[in-house]
Amino acid sequence: MSAVTPELHLRVTQLLETYGRLIDEDRLERWAELFTPDCRYEIISRENRDQGLPLSLMLCDSRDMLDDRIYSLRNANIFNIHSDCHVIGPARVQPGADGLEASAAYSLFQTNQGGETRLFSVGRYQLGLVERDGDLAIRSALVVVDTGAILTLLATPI
Amino acid sequence: MSAVTPELHLRVTQLLETYGRLIDEDRLERWAELFTPDCRYEIISRENRDQGLPLSLMLCDSRDMLDDRIYSLRNANIFNIHSDCHVIGPARVQPGADGLEASAAYSLFQTNQGGETRLFSVGRYQLGLVERDGDLAIRSALVVVDTGAILTLLATPI
Amino acid sequence: MSAVTPELHLRVTQLLETYGRLIDEDRLERWAELFTPDCRYEIISRENRDQGLPLSLMLCDSRDMLDDRIYSLRNANIFNIHSDCHVIGPARVQPGADGLEASAAYSLFQTNQGGETRLFSVGRYQLGLVERDGDLAIRSALVVVDTGAILTLLATPI
Repeated sequence: MSAVTPELHLRVTQLLETYGRLIDEDRLERWAELFTPDCRYEIISRENRDQGLPLSLMLCDSRDMLDDRIYSLRNANIFNIHSDCHVIGPARVQPGADGLEASAAYSLFQTNQGGETRLFSVGRYQLGLVERDGDLAIRSALVVVDTGAILTLLATPI
Repeated sequence: MSAVTPELHLRVTQLLETYGRLIDEDRLERWAELFTPDCRYEIISRENRDQGLPLSLMLCDSRDMLDDRIYSLRNANIFNIHSDCHVIGPARVQPGADGLEASAAYSLFQTNQGGETRLFSVGRYQLGLVERDGDLAIRSALVVVDTGAILTLLATPI
Repeated sequence: MSAVTPELHLRVTQLLETYGRLIDEDRLERWAELFTPDCRYEIISRENRDQGLPLSLMLCDSRDMLDDRIYSLRNANIFNIHSDCHVIGPARVQPGADGLEASAAYSLFQTNQGGETRLFSVGRYQLGLVERDGDLAIRSALVVVDTGAILTLLATPI
């Protein structure tokens, strides 16, 4: 079905696990370190993606911009306080143009300060990965979200 | 715990990932190609399964019937337009009578045209798999659904 | 990214799969057998964990106590009848003080007798694992739950 070895698939699975866990633990600064300096992080609705519309829900086209966004979250932005829980499905892994392409479906649940959990977003990660110092790093992350209705509340990354 | 190798487990994981992704991408014709000509695809409620009742929520007992069902969906049926997102848990893999038996829990979220996502169905896949041209193919898929309340809306496969 | 082999990661994944499936199939006596005699099973809210508060939502500090709890469920307790469905994310596996440490995010859906499914709890398993007769056994399971609002209904394990 593919030439991906269990070792490589495991490395991608571990990266996805780390990605979700670091957001869930509110360690966003550490999460940003998973990305390369020239990275692109974009959240787009499935509808816009399918129609070829360029409108993003969130777009950072470098690691610096990602860091700025997180700095703003910590220091300036007002948003609903919540805790995240990512449950991520099995990864698809393929050799890419230069590096690896990986994708996986995700479900993201948010819990408010009253302890009430709701389904916040579902969709799919589409990642471009490269080798860096023996680890995999994210050069591009496109988050294609099915859920459009509540994205006015989007503040933290997905 | 089992004699399943990482290579074999990965092949099953990849099949499950492909299964969910092809439905999510509305590539149902391609999804049907995962099945053998003599396949059986059945959706049954957990309640009926536990009580030994033969009533299915959907039943196709050959690949041709599966293709017909998809043709109907494309051409005749009226149903609520939605996009699917499958988040599938880890696979259980065991040698079966002739081939492999695999199972996994799933959660299926549907998003309507207004961008609102709801939990549509949870349950468990129970698959009978065989080798075909170096890939795994599905000879039998029993989808045991916990969620009974909204199945009047069931049109597309789970 | 880690020295964990695919074989070891698979063993942990299989343990998590078994853990969730046995609860989902209401085979709680068999589920308890996954634990060591001196085990600790604890459910704690994320809020209490973060604040260092010792208040547990459920605590069994031996296998005997776990068995007692299940015996009570079977024979004495009155609680809402439901079926569970666990969808568990990818595992994190690390060498621990003596044994293995594993963690994974989970989503737990409950379906009532009317066939209605709701999101019951999301959170993270933190497991301490040891070797036992060629299998992995659970010496400690800390279930850190995000969802606090509905835990008055907590009767069966998560």
